[in-house]
Amino acid sequence: MKIAVLGSGNGGCAVAAECALQGHDVRIFDFEEFSTNIQAIEKAKGIECSGLISGFAPISYAGHDIENAVSGAKLIYVVGPSYATVPFARAYKKVMQKGQQVIICPGTNGGALIFKKEVGLDFSSPDLIVSETSTLPYACRVITPGKVHIFHKLKDGVFFASLPASKTEAAYELFKEIYPGSKLSKNVLQTLLQNGNNVIHPAVSLLNVGRIESPEDFFFYEDGVTPAVGKLMKAVDKERMAIAEAFGLTILSEPETGYLQGYMLEKNYHTGYSKAPGFEGINAQTQIDNRY
Amino acid sequence: MKIAVLGSGNGGCAVAAECALQGHDVRIFDFEEFSTNIQAIEKAKGIECSGLISGFAPISYAGHDIENAVSGAKLIYVVGPSYATVPFARAYKKVMQKGQQVIICPGTNGGALIFKKEVGLDFSSPDLIVSETSTLPYACRVITPGKVHIFHKLKDGVFFASLPASKTEAAYELFKEIYPGSKLSKNVLQTLLQNGNNVIHPAVSLLNVGRIESPEDFFFYEDGVTPAVGKLMKAVDKERMAIAEAFGLTILSEPETGYLQGYMLEKNYHTGYSKAPGFEGINAQTQIDNRY
Repeated sequence: MKIAVLGSGNGGCAVAAECALQGHDVRIFDFEEFSTNIQAIEKAKGIECSGLISGFAPISYAGHDIENAVSGAKLIYVVGPSYATVPFARAYKKVMQKGQQVIICPGTNGGALIFKKEVGLDFSSPDLIVSETSTLPYACRVITPGKVHIFHKLKDGVFFASLPASKTEAAYELFKEIYPGSKLSKNVLQTLLQNGNNVIHPAVSLLNVGRIESPEDFFFYEDGVTPAVGKLMKAVDKERMAIAEAFGLTILSEPETGYLQGYMLEKNYHTGYSKAPGFEGINAQTQIDNRY
Repeated sequence: MKIAVLGSGNGGCAVAAECALQGHDVRIFDFEEFSTNIQAIEKAKGIECSGLISGFAPISYAGHDIENAVSGAKLIYVVGPSYATVPFARAYKKVMQKGQQVIICPGTNGGALIFKKEVGLDFSSPDLIVSETSTLPYACRVITPGKVHIFHKLKDGVFFASLPASKTEAAYELFKEIYPGSKLSKNVLQTLLQNGNNVIHPAVSLLNVGRIESPEDFFFYEDGVTPAVGKLMKAVDKERMAIAEAFGLTILSEPETGYLQGYMLEKNYHTGYSKAPGFEGINAQTQIDNRY
Protein backbone atom coordinates (compact mmCIF):
# COMPACT_ATOMS: atom_id res chain seq x y z
CA MET A 1 0.00 0.00 0.00
CA LYS A 2 1.20 3.53 -0.73
CA ILE A 3 1.48 5.50 2.49
CA ALA A 4 2.43 9.17 2.90
CA VAL A 5 3.73 10.55 6.18
CA LEU A 6 3.44 14.28 6.77
CA GLY A 7 5.99 15.23 9.42
CA SER A 8 9.62 14.21 9.81
CA GLY A 9 10.14 14.60 13.55
CA ASN A 10 10.59 11.80 16.07
CA GLY A 11 7.10 10.41 15.55
CA GLY A 12 7.01 10.89 11.78
CA CYS A 13 10.28 9.01 11.35
CA ALA A 14 9.07 6.16 13.58
CA VAL A 15 5.72 5.79 11.75
CA ALA A 16 7.40 6.00 8.33
CA ALA A 17 10.08 3.50 9.32
CA GLU A 18 7.71 0.91 10.73
CA CYS A 19 5.29 1.17 7.79
CA ALA A 20 8.21 0.72 5.39
CA LEU A 21 9.65 -2.19 7.38
CA GLN A 22 6.25 -3.87 7.11
CA GLY A 23 6.58 -3.68 3.33
CA HIS A 24 4.62 -0.56 2.44
CA ASP A 25 5.70 2.03 -0.13
CA VAL A 26 6.34 5.02 2.11
CA ARG A 27 6.87 8.68 1.21
CA ILE A 28 7.64 11.39 3.73
CA PHE A 29 7.03 15.13 3.51
CA ASP A 30 7.89 18.08 5.67
CA PHE A 31 8.05 21.84 5.20
CA GLU A 32 11.32 23.42 4.09
CA GLU A 33 11.96 24.85 7.54
CA PHE A 34 12.24 21.27 8.83
CA SER A 35 14.75 19.92 6.36
CA THR A 36 17.36 18.15 8.51
CA ASN A 37 15.76 14.71 8.69
CA ILE A 38 14.22 14.98 5.23
CA GLN A 39 17.64 15.61 3.66
CA ALA A 40 19.26 12.74 5.53
CA ILE A 41 16.44 10.34 4.57
CA GLU A 42 16.57 11.50 0.95
CA LYS A 43 20.33 10.93 0.83
CA ALA A 44 20.16 7.48 2.44
CA LYS A 45 16.92 6.62 0.63
CA GLY A 46 15.58 5.37 3.91
CA ILE A 47 15.51 5.54 7.68
CA GLU A 48 17.86 3.62 9.95
CA CYS A 49 15.79 2.24 12.78
CA SER A 50 17.16 0.98 16.10
CA GLY A 51 15.81 -0.18 19.42
CA LEU A 52 12.65 -2.21 19.74
CA ILE A 53 12.23 -2.19 15.97
CA SER A 54 15.44 -2.31 13.98
CA GLY A 55 16.55 -2.37 10.40
CA PHE A 56 16.89 -0.11 7.38
CA ALA A 57 13.50 1.13 6.22
CA PRO A 58 13.52 2.12 2.53
CA ILE A 59 11.62 5.36 1.84
CA SER A 60 10.65 5.98 -1.78
CA TYR A 61 10.37 9.78 -1.47
CA ALA A 62 11.57 12.24 1.13
CA GLY A 63 11.17 15.90 0.29
CA HIS A 64 9.33 19.19 0.51
CA ASP A 65 6.92 18.58 -2.40
CA ILE A 66 3.67 17.47 -0.80
CA GLU A 67 2.13 16.50 -4.16
CA ASN A 68 4.94 14.00 -4.75
CA ALA A 69 4.46 12.61 -1.28
CA VAL A 70 0.69 12.11 -1.26
CA SER A 71 -0.06 11.41 -4.92
CA GLY A 72 -1.51 7.92 -5.20
CA ALA A 73 -1.24 7.26 -1.44
CA LYS A 74 -4.14 5.39 0.06
CA LEU A 75 -3.28 6.38 3.61
CA ILE A 76 -1.80 9.63 4.89
CA TYR A 77 -0.36 9.83 8.39
CA VAL A 78 -0.14 13.32 9.84
CA VAL A 79 2.45 13.05 12.61
CA GLY A 80 3.47 16.09 14.63
CA PRO A 81 2.70 18.32 17.57
CA SER A 82 -0.71 19.97 17.69
CA TYR A 83 0.53 23.22 16.15
CA ALA A 84 1.47 21.31 12.97
CA THR A 85 -2.08 20.16 12.21
CA VAL A 86 -3.28 23.39 10.58
CA PRO A 87 -0.23 23.90 8.30
CA PHE A 88 -0.32 20.25 7.16
CA ALA A 89 -4.06 20.47 6.46
CA ARG A 90 -3.64 23.66 4.42
CA ALA A 91 -0.84 22.14 2.38
CA TYR A 92 -2.74 18.89 1.85
CA LYS A 93 -5.93 20.68 0.78
CA LYS A 94 -4.27 21.68 -2.52
CA VAL A 95 -3.28 18.13 -3.48
CA MET A 96 -6.06 16.07 -1.86
CA GLN A 97 -7.19 13.03 -3.91
CA LYS A 98 -10.46 11.14 -3.89
CA GLY A 99 -10.48 7.94 -1.83
CA GLN A 100 -7.57 8.87 0.44
CA GLN A 101 -7.72 8.40 4.18
CA VAL A 102 -5.98 10.57 6.76
CA ILE A 103 -4.89 9.59 10.26
CA ILE A 104 -3.79 12.33 12.67
CA CYS A 105 -1.34 10.56 14.92
CA PRO A 106 -1.79 11.67 17.61
CA GLY A 107 -4.94 13.80 17.46
CA THR A 108 -3.68 15.67 20.54
CA ASN A 109 -6.50 18.17 20.96
CA GLY A 110 -9.16 17.60 18.34
CA GLY A 111 -6.73 17.03 15.48
CA ALA A 112 -9.27 15.31 13.22
CA LEU A 113 -11.79 18.12 13.74
CA ILE A 114 -9.16 20.76 13.01
CA PHE A 115 -7.82 18.96 9.93
CA LYS A 116 -11.24 18.40 8.41
CA LYS A 117 -12.23 22.01 8.98
CA GLU A 118 -9.00 23.29 7.42
CA VAL A 119 -9.40 21.21 4.24
CA GLY A 120 -12.85 22.74 3.91
CA LEU A 121 -15.09 19.76 4.59
CA ASP A 122 -18.01 19.35 6.96
CA PHE A 123 -17.21 17.14 9.94
CA SER A 124 -19.82 14.62 8.77
CA SER A 125 -18.67 14.54 5.16
CA PRO A 126 -17.83 11.01 3.93
CA ASP A 127 -15.62 12.44 1.14
CA LEU A 128 -12.50 12.28 3.28
CA ILE A 129 -12.27 10.05 6.31
CA VAL A 130 -10.04 11.74 8.85
CA SER A 131 -9.14 9.58 11.85
CA GLU A 132 -7.07 10.29 14.91
CA THR A 133 -5.30 8.40 17.65
CA SER A 134 -5.30 9.36 21.32
CA THR A 135 -1.51 9.23 21.55
CA LEU A 136 1.61 8.53 19.53
CA PRO A 137 2.04 4.75 19.53
CA TYR A 138 5.80 5.02 20.21
CA ALA A 139 8.32 6.36 22.66
CA CYS A 140 11.02 7.34 20.21
CA ARG A 141 13.72 9.87 19.44
CA VAL A 142 15.64 10.83 16.31
CA ILE A 143 19.21 10.27 17.50
CA THR A 144 21.01 11.65 14.45
CA PRO A 145 19.34 13.01 11.29
CA GLY A 146 17.54 10.19 9.52
CA LYS A 147 18.09 7.69 12.35
CA VAL A 148 15.33 6.95 14.79
CA HIS A 149 15.53 4.96 18.02
CA ILE A 150 12.33 3.29 19.16
CA PHE A 151 12.40 2.78 22.93
CA HIS A 152 8.89 1.42 23.17
CA LYS A 153 5.88 0.60 21.00
CA LEU A 154 2.56 0.78 22.79
CA LYS A 155 0.81 -2.57 22.85
CA ASP A 156 -2.38 -1.18 24.36
CA GLY A 157 -3.90 2.12 25.50
CA VAL A 158 -3.93 3.70 21.99
CA PHE A 159 -7.44 4.74 20.96
CA PHE A 160 -8.66 5.32 17.43
CA ALA A 161 -11.74 7.03 16.00
CA SER A 162 -12.79 8.60 12.70
CA LEU A 163 -14.71 11.58 11.46
CA PRO A 164 -17.44 10.75 10.58
CA ALA A 165 -17.68 8.27 13.45
CA SER A 166 -19.70 5.88 11.29
CA LYS A 167 -16.53 5.20 9.29
CA THR A 168 -14.37 4.31 12.31
CA GLU A 169 -14.52 0.55 11.84
CA ALA A 170 -13.76 0.72 8.13
CA ALA A 171 -10.85 3.13 8.65
CA TYR A 172 -9.51 1.01 11.50
CA GLU A 173 -8.78 -1.83 9.05
CA LEU A 174 -5.89 0.14 7.60
CA PHE A 175 -4.60 1.23 10.99
CA LYS A 176 -4.77 -1.98 12.99
CA GLU A 177 -2.55 -3.79 10.52
CA ILE A 178 0.38 -1.74 11.86
CA TYR A 179 -0.97 -1.02 15.33
CA PRO A 180 -2.89 -4.14 16.32
CA GLY A 181 -2.91 -3.33 20.06
CA SER A 182 -4.98 -0.18 19.56
CA LYS A 183 -8.66 0.05 20.42
CA LEU A 184 -11.72 1.70 18.89
CA SER A 185 -13.24 4.76 20.50
CA LYS A 186 -16.85 5.80 20.12
CA ASN A 187 -15.85 9.08 18.43
CA VAL A 188 -13.06 11.66 18.23
CA LEU A 189 -14.30 13.35 21.39
CA GLN A 190 -13.36 10.17 23.19
CA THR A 191 -9.86 10.01 21.68
CA LEU A 192 -9.42 13.69 22.54
CA LEU A 193 -10.48 13.17 26.15
CA GLN A 194 -8.41 10.01 26.43
CA ASN A 195 -5.25 12.03 25.71
CA GLY A 196 -3.69 12.42 29.14
CA ASN A 197 -1.03 15.00 28.30
CA ASN A 198 -3.29 17.75 29.59
CA VAL A 199 -3.45 15.97 32.92
CA ILE A 200 0.27 15.36 33.34
CA HIS A 201 2.40 18.03 31.70
CA PRO A 202 0.75 21.25 32.91
CA ALA A 203 0.52 20.02 36.53
CA VAL A 204 4.17 18.95 36.66
CA SER A 205 5.28 22.13 34.90
CA LEU A 206 3.20 24.53 37.01
CA LEU A 207 4.33 23.16 40.35
CA ASN A 208 7.96 23.14 39.19
CA VAL A 209 8.19 26.60 37.64
CA GLY A 210 10.87 27.75 40.09
CA ARG A 211 13.00 24.73 39.28
CA ILE A 212 12.51 25.04 35.53
CA GLU A 213 13.80 28.60 35.66
CA SER A 214 16.74 27.68 37.88
CA PRO A 215 20.18 26.72 36.59
CA GLU A 216 20.02 23.15 37.94
CA ASP A 217 18.63 20.46 35.64
CA PHE A 218 16.09 17.96 36.91
CA PHE A 219 14.24 14.97 35.54
CA PHE A 220 10.67 15.80 34.59
CA TYR A 221 9.14 12.64 36.03
CA GLU A 222 11.58 11.21 38.60
CA ASP A 223 12.19 14.58 40.30
CA GLY A 224 9.21 16.60 39.11
CA VAL A 225 6.37 14.33 40.20
CA THR A 226 6.35 14.76 43.99
CA PRO A 227 3.36 13.75 46.20
CA ALA A 228 1.60 17.14 45.88
CA VAL A 229 2.17 17.18 42.12
CA GLY A 230 0.53 13.76 42.01
CA LYS A 231 -2.43 15.15 43.95
CA LEU A 232 -2.91 17.96 41.45
CA MET A 233 -2.70 15.51 38.53
CA LYS A 234 -5.31 13.35 40.23
CA ALA A 235 -7.65 16.32 40.71
CA VAL A 236 -7.29 17.38 37.07
CA ASP A 237 -7.80 13.81 35.91
CA LYS A 238 -10.99 13.58 37.96
CA GLU A 239 -12.32 16.60 36.10
CA ARG A 240 -11.34 15.13 32.74
CA MET A 241 -13.22 11.93 33.53
CA ALA A 242 -16.22 13.93 34.74
CA ILE A 243 -16.27 15.82 31.42
CA ALA A 244 -16.17 12.52 29.52
CA GLU A 245 -18.99 11.18 31.67
CA ALA A 246 -21.10 14.25 30.97
CA PHE A 247 -20.74 13.42 27.27
CA GLY A 248 -21.77 9.82 27.92
CA LEU A 249 -18.24 8.51 27.38
CA THR A 250 -16.19 6.28 29.63
CA ILE A 251 -12.48 6.95 29.57
CA LEU A 252 -9.59 5.40 31.44
CA SER A 253 -7.79 7.27 34.20
CA GLU A 254 -4.36 8.52 33.23
CA PRO A 255 -2.37 6.02 35.37
CA GLU A 256 -4.56 3.18 34.05
CA THR A 257 -3.75 4.28 30.50
CA GLY A 258 -0.02 4.64 31.18
CA TYR A 259 -0.01 1.19 32.74
CA LEU A 260 -1.77 -0.36 29.72
CA GLN A 261 0.60 1.45 27.38
CA GLY A 262 3.52 -0.14 29.19
CA TYR A 263 5.12 3.10 30.40
CA MET A 264 4.25 2.53 34.05
CA LEU A 265 4.30 -0.29 36.58
CA GLU A 266 2.03 1.28 39.20
CA LYS A 267 -1.45 2.70 38.70
CA ASN A 268 -1.13 5.79 40.91
CA TYR A 269 -0.46 9.48 40.39
CA HIS A 270 2.79 9.77 42.32
CA THR A 271 5.24 6.86 42.10
CA GLY A 272 3.30 5.60 39.09
CA TYR A 273 5.05 8.42 37.21
CA SER A 274 8.18 9.12 39.25
CA LYS A 275 9.21 5.46 39.09
CA ALA A 276 7.87 4.64 35.63
CA PRO A 277 10.47 2.77 33.55
CA GLY A 278 9.01 4.38 30.42
CA PHE A 279 9.54 7.92 31.70
CA GLU A 280 13.07 7.53 33.04
CA GLY A 281 15.81 10.04 32.28
CA ILE A 282 13.67 12.65 30.55
CA ASN A 283 15.05 16.10 31.36
CA ALA A 284 12.61 18.81 32.30
CA GLN A 285 12.30 21.84 30.08
CA THR A 286 14.76 24.64 30.89
CA GLN A 287 12.38 27.53 30.29
CA ILE A 288 8.69 28.22 30.79
CA ASP A 289 8.08 28.99 27.13
CA ASN A 290 8.02 25.34 26.09
CA ARG A 291 5.51 23.06 24.39
CA TYR A 292 5.20 20.96 27.56
CA MET B 1 3.31 52.79 81.08
CA LYS B 2 2.28 49.25 81.90
CA ILE B 3 2.35 47.14 78.76
CA ALA B 4 1.33 43.48 78.37
CA VAL B 5 2.54 41.35 75.48
CA LEU B 6 0.55 38.25 74.58
CA GLY B 7 2.83 35.90 72.65
CA SER B 8 6.43 34.90 73.33
CA GLY B 9 7.64 33.96 69.84
CA ASN B 10 10.09 35.93 67.70
CA GLY B 11 7.81 38.94 67.37
CA GLY B 12 6.52 38.89 70.95
CA CYS B 13 10.04 38.88 72.37
CA ALA B 14 11.10 41.74 70.08
CA VAL B 15 8.08 43.92 70.96
CA ALA B 16 8.46 43.18 74.68
CA ALA B 17 12.19 43.87 74.63
CA GLU B 18 11.94 47.16 72.79
CA CYS B 19 9.06 48.45 74.96
CA ALA B 20 11.05 47.53 78.06
CA LEU B 21 14.23 49.13 76.74
CA GLN B 22 12.24 52.33 76.20
CA GLY B 23 11.43 52.32 79.90
CA HIS B 24 7.98 50.73 80.05
CA ASP B 25 6.87 48.19 82.63
CA VAL B 26 6.43 45.11 80.45
CA ARG B 27 4.77 41.77 81.22
CA ILE B 28 4.67 38.85 78.84
CA PHE B 29 2.19 35.98 78.63
CA ASP B 30 1.94 32.81 76.59
CA PHE B 31 0.01 29.56 76.84
CA GLU B 32 1.58 26.63 78.69
CA GLU B 33 2.25 24.80 75.45
CA PHE B 34 4.68 27.59 74.51
CA SER B 35 6.79 27.69 77.66
CA THR B 36 10.38 27.68 76.40
CA ASN B 37 10.90 31.42 76.03
CA ILE B 38 8.59 32.27 78.91
CA GLN B 39 10.64 30.13 81.32
CA ALA B 40 13.93 31.59 80.12
CA ILE B 41 12.63 35.17 80.46
CA GLU B 42 11.18 34.45 83.89
CA LYS B 43 14.50 33.01 85.05
CA ALA B 44 16.57 35.91 83.70
CA LYS B 45 13.88 38.46 84.62
CA GLY B 46 14.30 39.92 81.18
CA ILE B 47 15.16 39.49 77.51
CA GLU B 48 18.64 39.72 76.10
CA CYS B 49 18.40 41.72 72.90
CA SER B 50 21.04 41.82 70.16
CA GLY B 51 21.41 43.23 66.68
CA LEU B 52 19.94 46.56 65.66
CA ILE B 53 18.60 47.08 69.19
CA SER B 54 20.77 45.72 71.96
CA GLY B 55 20.77 45.48 75.70
CA PHE B 56 19.09 43.66 78.55
CA ALA B 57 15.38 44.41 78.67
CA PRO B 58 13.91 43.88 82.17
CA ILE B 59 10.52 42.14 82.12
CA SER B 60 8.45 42.41 85.28
CA TYR B 61 6.36 39.29 84.66
CA ALA B 62 6.76 36.32 82.32
CA GLY B 63 4.33 33.47 82.78
CA HIS B 64 1.19 31.57 81.88
CA ASP B 65 -1.22 33.59 84.05
CA ILE B 66 -2.88 36.07 81.72
CA GLU B 67 -4.52 37.96 84.59
CA ASN B 68 -1.10 38.73 86.08
CA ALA B 69 0.12 39.86 82.71
CA VAL B 70 -2.70 42.22 81.72
CA SER B 71 -3.90 43.52 85.08
CA GLY B 72 -3.36 47.27 85.17
CA ALA B 73 -1.83 47.36 81.70
CA LYS B 74 -2.84 50.31 79.58
CA LEU B 75 -1.71 48.72 76.35
CA ILE B 76 -1.84 45.08 75.29
CA TYR B 77 0.15 43.88 72.30
CA VAL B 78 -1.08 40.64 70.74
CA VAL B 79 1.90 39.31 68.78
CA GLY B 80 1.70 36.03 66.92
CA PRO B 81 0.71 34.27 63.72
CA SER B 82 -2.91 34.60 62.60
CA TYR B 83 -3.98 31.31 64.19
CA ALA B 84 -3.04 32.73 67.62
CA THR B 85 -5.55 35.60 67.49
CA VAL B 86 -8.61 33.59 68.53
CA PRO B 87 -6.98 31.78 71.49
CA PHE B 88 -5.48 35.04 72.80
CA ALA B 89 -8.84 36.82 72.46
CA ARG B 90 -10.67 34.05 74.33
CA ALA B 91 -8.15 34.10 77.16
CA TYR B 92 -8.16 37.91 77.35
CA LYS B 93 -11.97 38.09 77.40
CA LYS B 94 -11.99 36.67 80.96
CA VAL B 95 -9.60 39.29 82.37
CA MET B 96 -10.40 42.31 80.22
CA GLN B 97 -10.30 45.67 82.08
CA LYS B 98 -11.97 48.95 81.29
CA GLY B 99 -9.82 51.53 79.50
CA GLN B 100 -7.34 49.06 78.06
CA GLN B 101 -6.24 49.21 74.47
CA VAL B 102 -5.25 46.26 72.32
CA ILE B 103 -2.93 46.23 69.30
CA ILE B 104 -2.81 43.13 67.10
CA CYS B 105 0.70 43.18 65.71
CA PRO B 106 0.45 42.23 62.90
CA GLY B 107 -3.26 42.03 62.10
CA THR B 108 -2.38 39.55 59.33
CA ASN B 109 -5.86 38.82 58.00
CA GLY B 110 -8.42 40.89 59.85
CA GLY B 111 -6.88 40.37 63.30
CA ALA B 112 -8.68 43.34 64.92
CA LEU B 113 -12.06 42.18 63.56
CA ILE B 114 -11.44 38.63 64.80
CA PHE B 115 -10.23 39.75 68.22
CA LYS B 116 -13.15 42.09 68.80
CA LYS B 117 -15.64 39.45 67.74
CA GLU B 118 -14.06 36.87 70.04
CA VAL B 119 -14.15 39.12 73.11
CA GLY B 120 -17.85 39.59 72.41
CA LEU B 121 -17.97 43.23 71.36
CA ASP B 122 -19.53 44.88 68.33
CA PHE B 123 -16.95 46.10 65.81
CA SER B 124 -18.11 49.69 66.41
CA SER B 125 -18.08 49.47 70.21
CA PRO B 126 -15.89 52.16 71.84
CA ASP B 127 -15.56 50.04 75.02
CA LEU B 128 -12.38 48.41 73.80
CA ILE B 129 -10.25 49.94 71.09
CA VAL B 130 -8.62 47.15 69.14
CA SER B 131 -6.01 48.28 66.64
CA GLU B 132 -3.87 46.36 64.21
CA THR B 133 -0.72 46.83 62.17
CA SER B 134 -0.25 45.71 58.57
CA THR B 135 2.96 43.85 59.37
CA LEU B 136 5.33 43.04 62.21
CA PRO B 137 7.65 46.04 62.57
CA TYR B 138 10.74 43.82 62.90
CA ALA B 139 12.76 41.18 61.12
CA CYS B 140 13.82 39.18 64.15
CA ARG B 141 14.54 35.69 65.45
CA VAL B 142 14.78 34.15 68.91
CA ILE B 143 18.30 32.73 68.76
CA THR B 144 18.24 30.88 72.08
CA PRO B 145 15.37 30.84 74.61
CA GLY B 146 14.86 34.32 75.99
CA LYS B 147 17.35 35.93 73.59
CA VAL B 148 16.13 37.77 70.53
CA HIS B 149 18.16 39.08 67.62
CA ILE B 150 16.71 42.06 65.76
CA PHE B 151 18.00 42.15 62.20
CA HIS B 152 15.90 45.07 61.12
CA LYS B 153 13.31 47.51 62.45
CA LEU B 154 10.97 48.90 59.82
CA LYS B 155 11.27 52.66 59.52
CA ASP B 156 8.35 52.98 57.15
CA GLY B 157 5.71 50.84 55.43
CA VAL B 158 3.96 49.80 58.66
CA PHE B 159 0.28 50.79 58.66
CA PHE B 160 -1.94 51.22 61.69
CA ALA B 161 -5.73 51.44 62.13
CA SER B 162 -8.25 50.91 64.91
CA LEU B 163 -11.67 49.44 65.41
CA PRO B 164 -13.72 51.65 65.57
CA ALA B 165 -11.89 53.65 62.89
CA SER B 166 -12.86 56.92 64.62
CA LYS B 167 -10.44 56.02 67.43
CA THR B 168 -7.43 55.43 65.16
CA GLU B 169 -5.73 58.77 65.82
CA ALA B 170 -6.17 58.55 69.57
CA ALA B 171 -4.90 54.95 69.69
CA TYR B 172 -1.97 55.83 67.46
CA GLU B 173 -0.58 58.12 70.18
CA LEU B 174 0.40 55.06 72.23
CA PHE B 175 1.79 53.18 69.24
CA LYS B 176 3.83 55.85 67.48
CA GLU B 177 5.91 56.45 70.58
CA ILE B 178 7.62 53.10 69.94
CA TYR B 179 7.05 52.88 66.17
CA PRO B 180 7.35 56.47 64.91
CA GLY B 181 7.89 55.46 61.28
CA SER B 182 4.46 53.87 60.99
CA LYS B 183 1.56 55.47 59.16
CA LEU B 184 -2.18 55.76 59.72
CA SER B 185 -4.58 53.79 57.58
CA LYS B 186 -8.18 54.77 56.91
CA ASN B 187 -9.47 51.59 58.56
CA VAL B 188 -8.59 47.98 59.34
CA LEU B 189 -9.65 46.91 55.84
CA GLN B 190 -6.77 49.01 54.58
CA THR B 191 -4.22 47.47 56.97
CA LEU B 192 -5.53 44.02 56.00
CA LEU B 193 -5.19 44.71 52.28
CA GLN B 194 -1.80 46.33 52.79
CA ASN B 195 -0.46 43.04 54.17
CA GLY B 196 1.52 41.65 51.25
CA ASN B 197 2.13 38.13 52.58
CA ASN B 198 -0.80 36.86 50.56
CA VAL B 199 0.84 38.19 47.44
CA ILE B 200 4.30 36.76 48.04
CA HIS B 201 4.23 33.51 49.99
CA PRO B 202 1.53 31.53 48.16
CA ALA B 203 2.91 32.41 44.71
CA VAL B 204 6.47 31.43 45.61
CA SER B 205 5.26 28.27 47.36
CA LEU B 206 2.88 27.16 44.60
CA LEU B 207 5.38 27.48 41.78
CA ASN B 208 8.04 25.72 43.85
CA VAL B 209 6.02 22.76 45.15
CA GLY B 210 8.23 20.19 43.40
CA ARG B 211 11.32 21.72 44.94
CA ILE B 212 9.81 22.00 48.40
CA GLU B 213 9.03 18.29 48.36
CA SER B 214 12.48 17.38 47.04
CA PRO B 215 15.44 16.52 49.25
CA GLU B 216 17.52 19.55 48.19
CA ASP B 217 17.20 22.74 50.23
CA PHE B 218 16.76 26.07 48.54
CA PHE B 219 16.46 29.70 49.59
CA PHE B 220 12.88 30.91 49.52
CA TYR B 221 13.62 34.29 47.97
CA GLU B 222 17.03 34.05 46.22
CA ASP B 223 16.22 30.73 44.51
CA GLY B 224 12.44 30.64 44.72
CA VAL B 225 11.59 33.97 43.11
CA THR B 226 12.33 33.32 39.42
CA PRO B 227 10.99 35.55 36.60
CA ALA B 228 7.72 33.61 36.20
CA VAL B 229 7.19 33.56 39.96
CA GLY B 230 7.59 37.34 39.89
CA LYS B 231 4.96 37.53 37.14
CA LEU B 232 2.47 35.58 39.23
CA MET B 233 3.14 37.78 42.26
CA LYS B 234 2.58 40.84 40.09
CA ALA B 235 -0.74 39.48 38.81
CA VAL B 236 -1.94 38.66 42.33
CA ASP B 237 -0.81 42.07 43.58
CA LYS B 238 -2.75 43.74 40.79
CA GLU B 239 -5.89 41.98 42.01
CA ARG B 240 -5.20 42.99 45.59
CA MET B 241 -4.86 46.64 44.56
CA ALA B 242 -8.05 46.39 42.47
CA ILE B 243 -9.92 45.05 45.51
CA ALA B 244 -8.63 47.95 47.60
CA GLU B 245 -9.66 50.39 44.88
CA ALA B 246 -13.16 48.90 44.78
CA PHE B 247 -13.40 49.71 48.50
CA GLY B 248 -12.23 53.28 47.87
CA LEU B 249 -8.81 52.60 49.40
CA THR B 250 -5.39 53.28 47.93
CA ILE B 251 -2.72 50.81 48.91
CA LEU B 252 0.92 50.50 47.98
CA SER B 253 2.15 47.76 45.68
CA GLU B 254 4.06 45.00 47.42
CA PRO B 255 7.52 45.95 46.06
CA GLU B 256 6.85 49.59 46.94
CA THR B 257 6.03 48.53 50.50
CA GLY B 258 9.07 46.22 50.81
CA TYR B 259 11.25 49.05 49.56
CA LEU B 260 9.84 51.51 52.09
CA GLN B 261 10.22 48.95 54.85
CA GLY B 262 13.90 48.65 53.98
CA TYR B 263 13.85 44.96 53.02
CA MET B 264 14.38 45.60 49.32
CA LEU B 265 16.54 47.79 47.11
CA GLU B 266 14.56 47.42 43.87
CA LYS B 267 10.85 48.05 43.32
CA ASN B 268 10.10 45.09 41.06
CA TYR B 269 8.59 41.62 41.50
CA HIS B 270 11.60 39.54 40.45
CA THR B 271 15.03 40.76 41.52
CA GLY B 272 13.33 43.08 44.00
CA TYR B 273 12.81 39.91 46.07
CA SER B 274 15.53 37.54 44.88
CA LYS B 275 18.22 40.15 45.54
CA ALA B 276 16.66 41.82 48.60
CA PRO B 277 19.19 42.22 51.42
CA GLY B 278 16.35 41.83 53.94
CA PHE B 279 15.28 38.44 52.58
CA GLU B 280 18.72 36.84 52.24
CA GLY B 281 19.46 33.36 53.50
CA ILE B 282 15.91 32.35 54.43
CA ASN B 283 15.46 28.63 53.75
CA ALA B 284 12.29 27.51 52.01
CA GLN B 285 9.89 25.24 53.84
CA THR B 286 10.65 21.53 53.50
CA GLN B 287 7.06 20.36 53.25
CA ILE B 288 3.82 21.64 51.75
CA ASP B 289 1.98 21.60 55.07
CA ASN B 290 3.56 24.80 56.33
CA ARG B 291 2.27 28.19 57.49
CA TYR B 292 3.90 29.90 54.50
